[in-house]
Amino acid sequence: MTSTEARDRSLPVVAGVDLGGTKIQTVVLRDEKVAGSARVLTPQTGDPGDVIDTIVGTIRTSLESAGASEADLRGVGIGTPGEVDVAAGAVLLAANVPGFSDRVELGPLVSKSLGTTKVAIGNDVSVGVLGEYRRGAGRPYKNLLGVWVGTGVGGGLVLDGELHDGRGAGGEFGHMVVKPGGLRCSCGRRGCVEAYAGRASMERRARRLVKRGHKTSLFRIMKNRGRERLSSGVYARALAHGDRMAKQLLDDAAWALGLGLASAQNLLDLEAVIVGGGLGDRLGQPFVDRIVEQMTPHLFVSHNPPVVLRTELGDLSGAVGAAVLAGG
Amino acid sequence: MTSTEARDRSLPVVAGVDLGGTKIQTVVLRDEKVAGSARVLTPQTGDPGDVIDTIVGTIRTSLESAGASEADLRGVGIGTPGEVDVAAGAVLLAANVPGFSDRVELGPLVSKSLGTTKVAIGNDVSVGVLGEYRRGAGRPYKNLLGVWVGTGVGGGLVLDGELHDGRGAGGEFGHMVVKPGGLRCSCGRRGCVEAYAGRASMERRARRLVKRGHKTSLFRIMKNRGRERLSSGVYARALAHGDRMAKQLLDDAAWALGLGLASAQNLLDLEAVIVGGGLGDRLGQPFVDRIVEQMTPHLFVSHNPPVVLRTELGDLSGAVGAAVLAGG
Repeated sequence: MTSTEARDRSLPVVAGVDLGGTKIQTVVLRDEKVAGSARVLTPQTGDPGDVIDTIVGTIRTSLESAGASEADLRGVGIGTPGEVDVAAGAVLLAANVPGFSDRVELGPLVSKSLGTTKVAIGNDVSVGVLGEYRRGAGRPYKNLLGVWVGTGVGGGLVLDGELHDGRGAGGEFGHMVVKPGGLRCSCGRRGCVEAYAGRASMERRARRLVKRGHKTSLFRIMKNRGRERLSSGVYARALAHGDRMAKQLLDDAAWALGLGLASAQNLLDLEAVIVGGGLGDRLGQPFVDRIVEQMTPHLFVSHNPPVVLRTELGDLSGAVGAAVLAGG
Repeated sequence: MTSTEARDRSLPVVAGVDLGGTKIQTVVLRDEKVAGSARVLTPQTGDPGDVIDTIVGTIRTSLESAGASEADLRGVGIGTPGEVDVAAGAVLLAANVPGFSDRVELGPLVSKSLGTTKVAIGNDVSVGVLGEYRRGAGRPYKNLLGVWVGTGVGGGLVLDGELHDGRGAGGEFGHMVVKPGGLRCSCGRRGCVEAYAGRASMERRARRLVKRGHKTSLFRIMKNRGRERLSSGVYARALAHGDRMAKQLLDDAAWALGLGLASAQNLLDLEAVIVGGGLGDRLGQPFVDRIVEQMTPHLFVSHNPPVVLRTELGDLSGAVGAAVLAGG
């Protein structure tokens, strides 16, 4: 160990956890940089205690990989799906995390299990956007919209340098209406951005098209890769093979995202848009370019568009943002 | 004069001017209340000097009607159409004010002519929303969207208690896209809120419908009232007489406004929306109710909608807001 490493290892650290329905990603930040990390599958037992234990396990593993001890831990942040009761540190209705369909006292339970530190809780998309804003692609800007394109389409607004979620339910970019009377959305309404750009909606549409006799390699690729869902990787592979349905679905997704972004831009005059989430990260720059192409014709102030960026932290955005939430 | 009046008359006052293409409305505020006002037609000579002189004239008339002198005047604010250079107090491209199609040093010129006080300049819709936020229907709220429905459709956002216009061009609620490929808008694009709810667009549509043989009393009422345009009053009269085209145009306007508001609400989770402008003020609560009816089905958080309100200050919103801008 060099003397620098020895000194570093005595510095305090902060842990950030990105809790998802399929995986739990944890990082440890030291001096604002990722010093350690761990990723495991989310327990599917349906017992919230198993999820809590796994979260605590990933924090300990991350601390070890950073050469830190629990005594160095100054804070823990967790980004979670569902509704968040920030004051209580509780989560409600995180339906896709097994065992989290009711209220779970996530913060206090993790805090108790670690036996040490305060745990801050935030919405998963919000903390992802916070991560990119404070430690990633959004650092140069004070007014930006993060659009997370995954199973659904989430959003997070930073205005005048602060996360802005109105009364706690803002940022629902995925439910801006881009086509009145359009495709049915997961929310039950029609024509939302998410009805075109959310993976769950896209898959429902793909299955309908196949039933009607349309051809695609999407489901074959899915099976070959051992997946049960049309994941971002499946789309990327199908696109690379020139699959027409995949191209159409992603073109429509880019259309809806671009149109929604133009409306948001005309209202808010943002400096930047960051496109993240599984689909955004996996499809990368060509997808971002396609979104910009669809957005541009609808911009009211066409000479001063927002910059549209990919994430810098990729699938660590959420965990890093959760650590930032806890002071990291 | 009572002793209270005598004391009041020695208090400082602030003037606010709402500069429009057809009229100039000025108020004088004393102790945050309207103490005097004046309204005149905007000079149509095309000489910006005439407009400046008229503005100064309305300020002097308002001061007199408030029993105040120029020595009591602590500030002047002006709300103007066009692009505003706040730092310089200048206006650019206020095309519908005769003589204002290029840059006019509005603030310095009015200041020089008055010989006394600093003049603050703001966008007409922004100051109207500011007026309602600080002295009107918006007082109980910190997060609201003002939607001004007139010749065009303007908007102004208050977030966390502050006017928010992004990089200076935000608040263009009228150019949120509600119907891709829809009606042509004044901005040259298609399907904007304003293409359905702005009076200029509505009139173009009415004229097209008449050419195609549709019947309406709108243009007869317009002529009978000595108007050259389908004013808000003309619509109100036609509606009262059961005119079907007027009803259809206003239903479509409410539809576009409701849909745009739902998208804005899903993104921003606002506490309140204030519907103002000529059409909003003239058509009143039934029009607001119709907008709410159209908005509600598209709200993502349907159990916690924003309150949708009429203005309290009516056609004084802009002038009062301009005075607020100047510290009134």
